[in-house]
Amino acid sequence: MVAKSNPATRHIVSINDLSDDEIETVFETAQGYLDLLPDKTFPYRIGRSTDVASPFILATLFYEPSTRTRLSFESAMLRLGGDVITSADPATSSAAKGESLADSVRVVANYADVLVIRHPRDGAAKLAAEYSPIPVINGGDGAHEHPTQTLCDIFTLRTKNKSLKGRNIAISGDLRGSRTIHSFVYALARFGANIMLMPAAGMGLPAHVDHRLREEFGCRTVSRDSYQRENAAVDALYVTPEEPHQLSLMSDIDADVSVKIRNKIDAVYVTRFQKERWAEKDQAYPTIDAKFLKEAKYSDASVMHPLPRVGELDISLDTDDRAVYFQQAAYGVPIRMALISLLLGLHKEKSFTTFDGGFPAPKTTIYQQPMGTGIHCANPNCIVQEPMEAQYAKNKFYAIGLDDPARSKLRCAYCESDIEHFVTANRKTKTYFSDTDHLRAAIASRALDDIILFANAAEAERAGFHAKRDATARRTGSGAPSTD
Amino acid sequence: MVAKSNPATRHIVSINDLSDDEIETVFETAQGYLDLLPDKTFPYRIGRSTDVASPFILATLFYEPSTRTRLSFESAMLRLGGDVITSADPATSSAAKGESLADSVRVVANYADVLVIRHPRDGAAKLAAEYSPIPVINGGDGAHEHPTQTLCDIFTLRTKNKSLKGRNIAISGDLRGSRTIHSFVYALARFGANIMLMPAAGMGLPAHVDHRLREEFGCRTVSRDSYQRENAAVDALYVTPEEPHQLSLMSDIDADVSVKIRNKIDAVYVTRFQKERWAEKDQAYPTIDAKFLKEAKYSDASVMHPLPRVGELDISLDTDDRAVYFQQAAYGVPIRMALISLLLGLHKEKSFTTFDGGFPAPKTTIYQQPMGTGIHCANPNCIVQEPMEAQYAKNKFYAIGLDDPARSKLRCAYCESDIEHFVTANRKTKTYFSDTDHLRAAIASRALDDIILFANAAEAERAGFHAKRDATARRTGSGAPSTD
Amino acid sequence: MVAKSNPATRHIVSINDLSDDEIETVFETAQGYLDLLPDKTFPYRIGRSTDVASPFILATLFYEPSTRTRLSFESAMLRLGGDVITSADPATSSAAKGESLADSVRVVANYADVLVIRHPRDGAAKLAAEYSPIPVINGGDGAHEHPTQTLCDIFTLRTKNKSLKGRNIAISGDLRGSRTIHSFVYALARFGANIMLMPAAGMGLPAHVDHRLREEFGCRTVSRDSYQRENAAVDALYVTPEEPHQLSLMSDIDADVSVKIRNKIDAVYVTRFQKERWAEKDQAYPTIDAKFLKEAKYSDASVMHPLPRVGELDISLDTDDRAVYFQQAAYGVPIRMALISLLLGLHKEKSFTTFDGGFPAPKTTIYQQPMGTGIHCANPNCIVQEPMEAQYAKNKFYAIGLDDPARSKLRCAYCESDIEHFVTANRKTKTYFSDTDHLRAAIASRALDDIILFANAAEAERAGFHAKRDATARRTGSGAPSTD
Repeated sequence: MVAKSNPATRHIVSINDLSDDEIETVFETAQGYLDLLPDKTFPYRIGRSTDVASPFILATLFYEPSTRTRLSFESAMLRLGGDVITSADPATSSAAKGESLADSVRVVANYADVLVIRHPRDGAAKLAAEYSPIPVINGGDGAHEHPTQTLCDIFTLRTKNKSLKGRNIAISGDLRGSRTIHSFVYALARFGANIMLMPAAGMGLPAHVDHRLREEFGCRTVSRDSYQRENAAVDALYVTPEEPHQLSLMSDIDADVSVKIRNKIDAVYVTRFQKERWAEKDQAYPTIDAKFLKEAKYSDASVMHPLPRVGELDISLDTDDRAVYFQQAAYGVPIRMALISLLLGLHKEKSFTTFDGGFPAPKTTIYQQPMGTGIHCANPNCIVQEPMEAQYAKNKFYAIGLDDPARSKLRCAYCESDIEHFVTANRKTKTYFSDTDHLRAAIASRALDDIILFANAAEAERAGFHAKRDATARRTGSGAPSTD
Repeated sequence: MVAKSNPATRHIVSINDLSDDEIETVFETAQGYLDLLPDKTFPYRIGRSTDVASPFILATLFYEPSTRTRLSFESAMLRLGGDVITSADPATSSAAKGESLADSVRVVANYADVLVIRHPRDGAAKLAAEYSPIPVINGGDGAHEHPTQTLCDIFTLRTKNKSLKGRNIAISGDLRGSRTIHSFVYALARFGANIMLMPAAGMGLPAHVDHRLREEFGCRTVSRDSYQRENAAVDALYVTPEEPHQLSLMSDIDADVSVKIRNKIDAVYVTRFQKERWAEKDQAYPTIDAKFLKEAKYSDASVMHPLPRVGELDISLDTDDRAVYFQQAAYGVPIRMALISLLLGLHKEKSFTTFDGGFPAPKTTIYQQPMGTGIHCANPNCIVQEPMEAQYAKNKFYAIGLDDPARSKLRCAYCESDIEHFVTANRKTKTYFSDTDHLRAAIASRALDDIILFANAAEAERAGFHAKRDATARRTGSGAPSTD
Repeated sequence: MVAKSNPATRHIVSINDLSDDEIETVFETAQGYLDLLPDKTFPYRIGRSTDVASPFILATLFYEPSTRTRLSFESAMLRLGGDVITSADPATSSAAKGESLADSVRVVANYADVLVIRHPRDGAAKLAAEYSPIPVINGGDGAHEHPTQTLCDIFTLRTKNKSLKGRNIAISGDLRGSRTIHSFVYALARFGANIMLMPAAGMGLPAHVDHRLREEFGCRTVSRDSYQRENAAVDALYVTPEEPHQLSLMSDIDADVSVKIRNKIDAVYVTRFQKERWAEKDQAYPTIDAKFLKEAKYSDASVMHPLPRVGELDISLDTDDRAVYFQQAAYGVPIRMALISLLLGLHKEKSFTTFDGGFPAPKTTIYQQPMGTGIHCANPNCIVQEPMEAQYAKNKFYAIGLDDPARSKLRCAYCESDIEHFVTANRKTKTYFSDTDHLRAAIASRALDDIILFANAAEAERAGFHAKRDATARRTGSGAPSTD
């Protein structure tokens, strides 16, 4: 028998690459593996219950340290009856010779049937997926996302709490550097939980994640005055509306909402200081311990952590009934077994391909920047900034919210960070525009090739464009040569 | 079919975790795999003769370099029909992010059915075993022990010599830094061999290993005068009594014994300078070569080495019939196949669990030091000294030989090194005692919580305790605050 | 069932270890795996179509970074139903403790059935093969050879062009540092292709490869004047005679040949600057891009690259129909499946052992230099120069072309580089000879033990030998002690 790749290759780069129904299917499939267990007590032993994956190979391509993600993927594949090939160390791979990720992926895709990638750059998994003929699963890309950890997290919460709707989930620590948190808050919003942020000082959610929660996932944020007066630790509270996924047009601050929030916390999610993503390595950081959890509102709160921990979660909690973090880790095997088997189409009755195909893509237009000029992704850790990938990862953006000047932005197609200010230049007229009407018009008339975007007016001027109404300013005020 | 862990989890941290009968069972099982071979000539090829381990996964968690131990364990598991997941490099694992061993083990235990660990710290395997729900096998922990190497060594000797009783085994090189040697001498003593030490200068057996050989394994040491006059190279000779495992109360030096020792050496065991465990990297080191082995007493001596070698064993011996070191390495596969299959209970007729459960535990009491005060393990390389493990590896000791002041000591529960001098303080009376009677009384009355041990009187004083009879000295002579 | 090693162990160190017929058998076997595919479109998915290798283990022992070679070997073994053990990083292997390759190989050979080795030193694979009881496959040794890459390359060319006879293959880049190129040009010559070299400045073929092409593979080189006037990029052109493998006695330069060469290029093989093999890291390097390939003679040229590339092959060619470099990588799996299964004798109808046994060994005599004196291999990167291997890799040479003083030379048995000038000393007469007659006579009379070779007269003098006719010069002019 010869293995055959799934004709419609699906990649899991973001948690939002899975529809709600597909996430439910992952959970059902994982529960199916757990139901086979003769002994249901934790820690779970997951034997090789099936040989469905036996002709298939999973490759791990890891450019950053990992124990649990890599080993749990490998264990999952082996327990499905499949095989594994591993590149765990960039220093011993062809990356050490200067090979681009795009080339490495196209090569390794010939040796395996599904590929798990971890990389220090935001958006690297998306780049890999663009070049891979086999399914790519994001095992963590920079500070962007870590969707399979979120599947374990949500599955753990669901097992404890049946439903996520209306649950209060507090999240503590480095919310900016932790990719795990970004995937997690999207999923919480989608399943109707309320998100209470308790960041370390200066480590709040990235602006673009906040924007998406409010503008795309319909979260309402609650006024500092009413709720936070009595909940000092909570920096921001996102209340998910009755119907998630509907763009909410209500104002950002809705004081009334606060009265509806139960004061009971259903889970506290703790994350470590991601020091590899920060220049300043010594920063104050909150610790969650038994004392913190003594308050009545935490009495039934599950204590969660993606691990590893390095001091921010006291080990005295290991014997506390509320601790579920080793269960999160244990669920890594059945969840990843489910994900692999669904991506490879190994279950007749259940498959991703029976769905429409993932979370609906943004109803937005993609714009690809010409090489060598114009706007760049502003995130210094984005994969497009990596010199080795320069030729493969072009600056590419989703144009978001052009109808509303206050919300219009460009979203990098790789790292999904936002650019809120830019100017639109017209190659034919050599003019540029500071509002977004011109970009909207170019999209409407399918004339994106005629335009080029710049970070600001000065850069457009330097490139030889002039402001719409001020044609005389052309090529003055700047000695820079004009280019097109 | 779903794998199920053995209900009574057994760990192999020390060679002394296996009873003599269990070691025999390992050898019988290994011989069974060898008997399946159509061609008995060396080097042995061990095919996959069985699929008994097919639903199981072995994980290797290596924090120190290894080729033969890791690859032979992996080969053994694969040849049993099982699967393997590997973490061979701490730099690419979550240890690089600062995760404790205790956490790593609890996580990886969810992904595998048996765990082999190697670590630069003495006692690390014991710590791992304390936290692991699945069997832990020590693949070498610092300078402490390497029990599976010893199983290969003893099996090699047995294959050559039928029985170990009364055999003379000379051991050359770094006896202090070599974990292999420590497991080996315990096994030699238990199986009745005589141990002749030929250490490099300053590299004799650690004091605690010497103590155990004499005080627990019943070895008698032989006077320098009588035997060593004609055997200048031999620094110490341990003669194993007729009935090993009986605590010998005879004096350390028994000149008469020497006359009974045959002058024939049955094996010379050579070990490399363990330079990774010594601050001073350039030290004189003995070389074993053809010239050394020309003496008549070595004419039938097997030449052994755990490998790797780095010059101390001349390669001219590779073609010498007495050389068995590549056979030791070759036996790694059947021995480890046997160990894995017995730990996982894969053989109906043979199993560790049919035995009483290992080498009898020390008939001693364990004492756990309160955090933050009191006595610490004196071995600077012990796992309890590792900052990352501080919260998991508490100072914990066996109280040994309290009946005999000359032999009373504390043995670290992790690295098994000894503390010979300590004082016992009573939290209630705030007094301390320099003899061991008070500790013995506290054990007898099950009042260990009332006492706290200190390295010496000065530290007890600093902590606010005073000598039993000198109550006026309390809190004088030291400006340190009192604590309890 | 118990695996049994092939009685006549074959190693693949050089492409020349395989006869032409055996290479054809590798290709047929590989094509057999491809023919099983239901979907023949590229990229190929190679499922586990067989379990023939199921009791066998392949070990990879890599001392240099690799992604494609290691992972494609592992994928190949898994797809044959076999298992894999991996040592990918010398820093985490026993090499970190100073173990020699010879010892590592003898140990690992007990854990596996076939061994793939990669090493930074030229000739390391040959050394490994000398010590290994199981088949060794060279996965790349220094700047020496990379035969399995060449099998993929030739298979790719054959698939495109049916036959290699008379094809024009241009090769661009670092022809000196690239081991891939060395195996490749031998194979091209053997299968009758014409080789057009387009080296980067100063990076031409090593002298010994050039010598072999001309003196052993019968290539004629073409005059600069006639051909190269219109093909400026081509530095050297080797035209393979009608009957390859016949020692050509014609002159090096044959101007007439040029007129017979078609001006059409069938393939351009590009290789990266092997900066790890050069002291000077910043050197001018040619880039192959769409513009370069615009000339009519390249219109049907396959564009090949062993990958990884680091800028010398423009990515705009990725979508060019002539690009076959990802196919070369994809063929890695079926080619290596074929090689492994043939080496292990897994196919009844096809096997290497049905052939006479490889490419005919050089009809030359091997000379082994006594330790500690005399001539050394002149290649500073040869494995014999590695201090850790000094005792295992003795200076050993093939004596080549002694009939013709202009062509006589010593070829290192490991790295195959040449020594063209040497003197032959006679231990009995204490005299030395600058011509090769004395060496030829010693070979003829089987008296190689009587002679010792030196790099030049001065070294022979220093060692106490004197020139044949000038006996009075003995031990004068040099204060060095005489030795034998």
